[in-house]
Amino acid sequence: MATRTLKLTIAYDGTDYAGWQVQAGQPSLQAEFQKTLQQIVGQRTHVAASGRTDAGVHALGQVVSFETDSDLSVETFQRALNAHLPRDIVVIAAEEAPPGFHARRDAVRKRYRYILQDSRVRDVCRLRYAHHLYKRLDVAAMQQAAAILVGMHDFASFESAGSRRTTTVRTINELTVRRGDSRENEFAAEQGGRTKYPNLADIVVIEVEADGFLYNMVRNIVGTLIEVGQGRAGEEWVANVLAARDRRQAGQTAPPQGLFLVQVDY
Amino acid sequence: MATRTLKLTIAYDGTDYAGWQVQAGQPSLQAEFQKTLQQIVGQRTHVAASGRTDAGVHALGQVVSFETDSDLSVETFQRALNAHLPRDIVVIAAEEAPPGFHARRDAVRKRYRYILQDSRVRDVCRLRYAHHLYKRLDVAAMQQAAAILVGMHDFASFESAGSRRTTTVRTINELTVRRGDSRENEFAAEQGGRTKYPNLADIVVIEVEADGFLYNMVRNIVGTLIEVGQGRAGEEWVANVLAARDRRQAGQTAPPQGLFLVQVDY
Repeated sequence: MATRTLKLTIAYDGTDYAGWQVQAGQPSLQAEFQKTLQQIVGQRTHVAASGRTDAGVHALGQVVSFETDSDLSVETFQRALNAHLPRDIVVIAAEEAPPGFHARRDAVRKRYRYILQDSRVRDVCRLRYAHHLYKRLDVAAMQQAAAILVGMHDFASFESAGSRRTTTVRTINELTVRRGDSRENEFAAEQGGRTKYPNLADIVVIEVEADGFLYNMVRNIVGTLIEVGQGRAGEEWVANVLAARDRRQAGQTAPPQGLFLVQVDY
Repeated sequence: MATRTLKLTIAYDGTDYAGWQVQAGQPSLQAEFQKTLQQIVGQRTHVAASGRTDAGVHALGQVVSFETDSDLSVETFQRALNAHLPRDIVVIAAEEAPPGFHARRDAVRKRYRYILQDSRVRDVCRLRYAHHLYKRLDVAAMQQAAAILVGMHDFASFESAGSRRTTTVRTINELTVRRGDSRENEFAAEQGGRTKYPNLADIVVIEVEADGFLYNMVRNIVGTLIEVGQGRAGEEWVANVLAARDRRQAGQTAPPQGLFLVQVDY
């Protein structure tokens, strides 16, 4: 059979991996995926992702592509991969792609989510999936600061060292900051639960959609918005940081466990 | 200072523990808690819980009690414990209790929650917090079967071996089975998210409140309701299981990771 190109949408818990990309001597999502794929198609196959995710970062809608001579149906690919992949990696959808389709080169838009938990009492079931802060965040102030970053800008101040981009100009289409509502907990609506822990009102969700992201850009934006949310800086500071095009001006890089790649558009 | 009795409400992720109770050579929640408490008050202190939880079982509202000569305030106890406990154990609330208060002996009612995820595609962020089933559950059938178990009954059919109860009669006040609603995901309401994975509509929550529970009673009830939800048995079978007072008649014991102790009343 002729070579086909497949496009898969995958999810993973990145906690136990050194990131997407193969790295010598360290567990990587790409290595696990390629190893499982080899078991199914019988030969080594390079799998391209829409982008690397770093150690500890999760994905709910990562997209990968690969070429194969296999004549297995897309349904069989999905079922076989899900049966043999580690439990913390799963294929959500599998489809045929046009010849030459490439998950990274053809991506036109990506969306990330970052989960913060701001409460004196940490949520023990979100240790892997949120960044815990003791101090309550001022979400309204964060929303005003976030608005400054929307649009086409030079985001050099939000790029960590170690990347090799030709341009640091990107367009953020959307950058939202929302607090969970006051339902008593995430299942309250489902079962009439009366327990107060954990509480969605202690969760702040930041979502950002852009045509592309610089290295650590989301985590650097989140770290900067945390400065504002904790009252150490105002929106004019964020405007100055953006204008400075200098990484040293922005906030700290927020830790990886709160970050989720949620969608890639083509 | 005279001896005081303290009552603490605690939460933990039970994944990495062999259960609440101290066991030689294995990590236990009680051992971690007592070790941290000893660091704070300077002497070995026995901590009683409302009941043991088994390996891998979680708590969002476990209650523990202990006696101490310390004159630290309850706020200081909570803060110091949360600073020194492992990250997967946390004190939600701390209060003075009447002399002689005992978390196990004085408990009059408990509530457990069990989380099922029934979907072809497993939720990678719920591997530690739900029991995944490929086959879709018939929640209406499970609700009808659950109604049979509500009230005062001899639950001997739902007690695993290894316990030493004098009576197997208990009263279930409430036993509900609910499917998550069709919001696209748990944060959809918070940030207008458009992603479809994970999906709350794939989550089934079972909650049960009783005056007391036999060993593995919740997990045996859940295993029995799964038989009904997967169409292998009907509600009349559940009535027969209950009447038989014979553990071999009921369904399998559901695995621990879906179980949460959510509330203890006094």
